[in-house]
Amino acid sequence: MDEIRTIAVVGAGLVGQGWAIVFARAGLDVAIYDARDNAEVVIRPQIERAIADLGAGGLCDDPTALLSRIRFTETLADAVANSDYVQESAFERIDVKREVSRAIDAALPGHAFVGSSTSGFPGSDFYADCVHRARMMVVHPVNPPHLIPLVEIVPTPWTAPEMAMRARALMEDVGQSAVSLSREVPGFVLNRLQGALLDEAFALFAEGYATAEDIDRTVRDGLGLRWAFMGPFETIDLNAPNGLADYAERLGPMYAGFAAQRQADRGWTADAVQRADAERRNILPPSGLLARRSWRDEMLMRMVKAKKDLPS
Amino acid sequence: MDEIRTIAVVGAGLVGQGWAIVFARAGLDVAIYDARDNAEVVIRPQIERAIADLGAGGLCDDPTALLSRIRFTETLADAVANSDYVQESAFERIDVKREVSRAIDAALPGHAFVGSSTSGFPGSDFYADCVHRARMMVVHPVNPPHLIPLVEIVPTPWTAPEMAMRARALMEDVGQSAVSLSREVPGFVLNRLQGALLDEAFALFAEGYATAEDIDRTVRDGLGLRWAFMGPFETIDLNAPNGLADYAERLGPMYAGFAAQRQADRGWTADAVQRADAERRNILPPSGLLARRSWRDEMLMRMVKAKKDLPS
Repeated sequence: MDEIRTIAVVGAGLVGQGWAIVFARAGLDVAIYDARDNAEVVIRPQIERAIADLGAGGLCDDPTALLSRIRFTETLADAVANSDYVQESAFERIDVKREVSRAIDAALPGHAFVGSSTSGFPGSDFYADCVHRARMMVVHPVNPPHLIPLVEIVPTPWTAPEMAMRARALMEDVGQSAVSLSREVPGFVLNRLQGALLDEAFALFAEGYATAEDIDRTVRDGLGLRWAFMGPFETIDLNAPNGLADYAERLGPMYAGFAAQRQADRGWTADAVQRADAERRNILPPSGLLARRSWRDEMLMRMVKAKKDLPS
Repeated sequence: MDEIRTIAVVGAGLVGQGWAIVFARAGLDVAIYDARDNAEVVIRPQIERAIADLGAGGLCDDPTALLSRIRFTETLADAVANSDYVQESAFERIDVKREVSRAIDAALPGHAFVGSSTSGFPGSDFYADCVHRARMMVVHPVNPPHLIPLVEIVPTPWTAPEMAMRARALMEDVGQSAVSLSREVPGFVLNRLQGALLDEAFALFAEGYATAEDIDRTVRDGLGLRWAFMGPFETIDLNAPNGLADYAERLGPMYAGFAAQRQADRGWTADAVQRADAERRNILPPSGLLARRSWRDEMLMRMVKAKKDLPS
């Protein structure tokens, strides 16, 4: 990673702030640009709080040093023109993405490359008109990036393959867990997998087979325990005597039977959504959402730490 | 739990052994019957090893006391006739299930009830002719039951509702995490959810969007980190400002779009299975499967312990 020293973080909502921490934690210098008035005044304390939480969770040795690597710029051009890599996390609206990408494009040094945190748009929707589009792609994190290491790298049709590989190398160098898609697809991988499971969860709930809480329990005390450290392919690879192909032979037909029963266009019916929401509100009143998110982030740190303590 | 003191474990392969540990760990007396010759000679050392691993993982305070609560019987009738609850984990073949269920039925005391560990058959396929079928149901664990707490309780059309509730109470009393289905459905909840995700994973892999390893990474370093302690409904409930209904409104259409693209009958094509298996074998040769399963069980214990240390 000898050529990447300075990162421009464009857009510093929660995702951008998380990215700033990821890069600074890895020893890189970070220049944040955010379009809001008084951006630094608003954002710096939020970053400091997040770093303090990391420290309390045993996941950050030197908060002061980390913070010292983060600075704010007055203009987007200032942050981008002095960077080796740009992580864009602007507002998730297509006109904003296009405008910000053009501004990044105009200031981009010849050697630098760009990743967008977008979850909802293919890069080809907003990089098409950029001069440097061969060095631009989607680099999609999971919120919050400094707690969940997964990053999906999704090239546009114009992204140079070596740029996508450089993005992957950078992500791995800064401690993230990178996944490389060969080409664009809506939802990339993570949200498509999540959607597949959610669709089945909503269908089972809608058809009255179990409560939303019991369906949640099935995952958090069952499937999710395994999936916290093994993906679905490794899970089944270990669940039949002779590995994945053996598992597919023994149980493939069973799963095909479930699939045959699944109807297309089941969707999340309005009734199922309303009832699932009501069940959640019964378990957790709206006033409890904030504290529960803090608990979630604390648990994420513990999961990450538990995995680190036993390397694979 | 004042009336449940003694458990009959019928069938003591890995699943039955795990059950014996679950019940003995909770302070109950366990009588194991297994049809194999020299059953105790074969099985007792396996149980001792599993308990030793639990102790090493900090999940069992007194292995000696636990073992002292486990005995073996010479006949099925002996184990069942003196029990308050029977956990059946016989060979997963319908004729075996029917035969064993009839034998249990013939010896069952008036007050006792029965759960089957079956994963592939509805209880109605083998309990139909039993006199005590109102007190019989599926009580389906995840392998291994002493490490993964999830249990699915699936009544047949003849199961008395209060018996299903007693089974749930028993499961919770012995430290498992119970899910109650309202009625039978192939795959119950867990395998249907797993199948939904696996189908999408195989499709993305088959269509060349990512390697099997990167798809696995998406789960173990992304989705699975959250799902280790939050189910899918809670996850999305916390991922929009105003909870689940808010999330469904913002992102429901996006997921519906993915679903519309999913084709029915995609299945796990022979080519995709062979290529995924080849990828797995490249990462982990067949000779490494055994050690990797040990690593998996060690990690499961760490996940369980990490969750225990921060109660929700």
